[in-house]
Amino acid sequence: MDFKEQLELYTTTVNTSFERFLSVEDVPERNLLESMMYSLKAGGKRLRPALIMACYQLFSQDYEEVIPFAIAMEMVHTFSLIHDDLPAIDNDNLRRGKPTNHVVYGESCAILAGDALLNKAYEIMLEYTLNNPNKYNTYISAMNVIANGVSRMIVGEHVDIECEGKNISKGMLDYMHSNKTGEMITAACVAGAILGSASDYQIDVITRYAKNIGLAFQIKDDILSEVGDQEKLGKPIGNDKEMNKSTYVTILGLEKSREILDNTIEDAVDLLSRNFGGNAQFLIDLAKFIKDREN
Amino acid sequence: MDFKEQLELYTTTVNTSFERFLSVEDVPERNLLESMMYSLKAGGKRLRPALIMACYQLFSQDYEEVIPFAIAMEMVHTFSLIHDDLPAIDNDNLRRGKPTNHVVYGESCAILAGDALLNKAYEIMLEYTLNNPNKYNTYISAMNVIANGVSRMIVGEHVDIECEGKNISKGMLDYMHSNKTGEMITAACVAGAILGSASDYQIDVITRYAKNIGLAFQIKDDILSEVGDQEKLGKPIGNDKEMNKSTYVTILGLEKSREILDNTIEDAVDLLSRNFGGNAQFLIDLAKFIKDREN
Repeated sequence: MDFKEQLELYTTTVNTSFERFLSVEDVPERNLLESMMYSLKAGGKRLRPALIMACYQLFSQDYEEVIPFAIAMEMVHTFSLIHDDLPAIDNDNLRRGKPTNHVVYGESCAILAGDALLNKAYEIMLEYTLNNPNKYNTYISAMNVIANGVSRMIVGEHVDIECEGKNISKGMLDYMHSNKTGEMITAACVAGAILGSASDYQIDVITRYAKNIGLAFQIKDDILSEVGDQEKLGKPIGNDKEMNKSTYVTILGLEKSREILDNTIEDAVDLLSRNFGGNAQFLIDLAKFIKDREN
Repeated sequence: MDFKEQLELYTTTVNTSFERFLSVEDVPERNLLESMMYSLKAGGKRLRPALIMACYQLFSQDYEEVIPFAIAMEMVHTFSLIHDDLPAIDNDNLRRGKPTNHVVYGESCAILAGDALLNKAYEIMLEYTLNNPNKYNTYISAMNVIANGVSRMIVGEHVDIECEGKNISKGMLDYMHSNKTGEMITAACVAGAILGSASDYQIDVITRYAKNIGLAFQIKDDILSEVGDQEKLGKPIGNDKEMNKSTYVTILGLEKSREILDNTIEDAVDLLSRNFGGNAQFLIDLAKFIKDREN
């Protein structure tokens, strides 16, 4: 299977599994359930589920076992998007070209839908764990890593709000993004590796890979926001500086940002090639995909 | 130890344990940490922690083991209060005589503080579990019960919003309150019993006790809201009907509400006396306390 087919398989697995874990039995309130499903199904790259599944598959063949965790990761991610978009936070009316949750379902429902998705993520993982006594240690360790990541993500979101409209240093920008997006990308990779029974050394390699692609992901976002194709991106470009938004491009310039992006991806690829060889082909291609993507 | 001393001991244990589980190490953002602590320390009856500790102590002497779960329960409860008070939901500016979280820290911070408290609750329980391999099954079962309770609580909050200003049936009122407050009271009791290694039969008794006191708690709230002492209660009384708010008193009248309250508490007390005798004295007194409280 080539990279695109593998990514498509992961994405399809996620997109077709939500109903297995979230139904009217769990959420008997039709409107609340609908709003949770609306944002879950609004699309997106499914990057975190793909990472947890691919890191798991570095060490194990099948990936049935990891699906509940992959779905939980996507629910946590969706919770964070719904709350970030709220009028009191980023006040975004559109995401991926669709009206945001609170625009469709109202603010109170959007707050509760986010809360419910975060909690549902734990419910899914705990119930699955409870039914697999021979895997308790592994599953609790994975949940613990995910929980730590969520805490950091919320801290990052708070930093983002506090820094809005301020000129910040590169150090502060790193701190913000490593918390806001980096930690959950790392949590996805590390949880996958733990679930696949990786050794401590292997988990360390995966962690370093994850930190590199997390940073690269953000730098690429900032570059696209400056020079991307407006149509492919689905949002206006080139006005971060005017909006007084601190990004890697506004702080370091385009050339330096591209240089760091290239180096970061190269490091990520090297790490995996050296340690896992051809087994890591998907994750190597994913790193390149993050660098070359156009939206 | 009499009832008041025991309750005081539980409350003090909770009030002095927050810092043990939540510090600047976990939340390096000063403002976010402060807002989480502000609401945690804003007081309250600490009913859920008292229930989880007391139900645990029906079956085990010490209660050191149950403290992380008691703190997690109070964090979940506090998360729900912060989000309920938000302008988009109940828009309350005061709680227990103090400005609500969003009034002091702003709406965006209040949303994130609620999110962070919910997540922190799981982080605390998962980390504690990870460090106690010989208790995996017990702790995962307790977390699972709590997670189910939180999902139901959020459903109940959604029902509450949808029913606002409408005349609803007693059946709908029961459904709303059993989800919104009843399920977490039950989760506290059942999780305590599970942690204390209660038998299935004992857990069933505890569940029935919990459902009774959960209902009684709400009926008493509605009675106080009609005929309570305004000063002791800290809010205006007697205007639920004018505000078109459906309560047990507006639907059933004062006399019938008192009758159900008495019967519900009597059932709860009977259940415990018959099954646990003097061991359950605190929980028996707590049921009576719920009936007789003035705020």
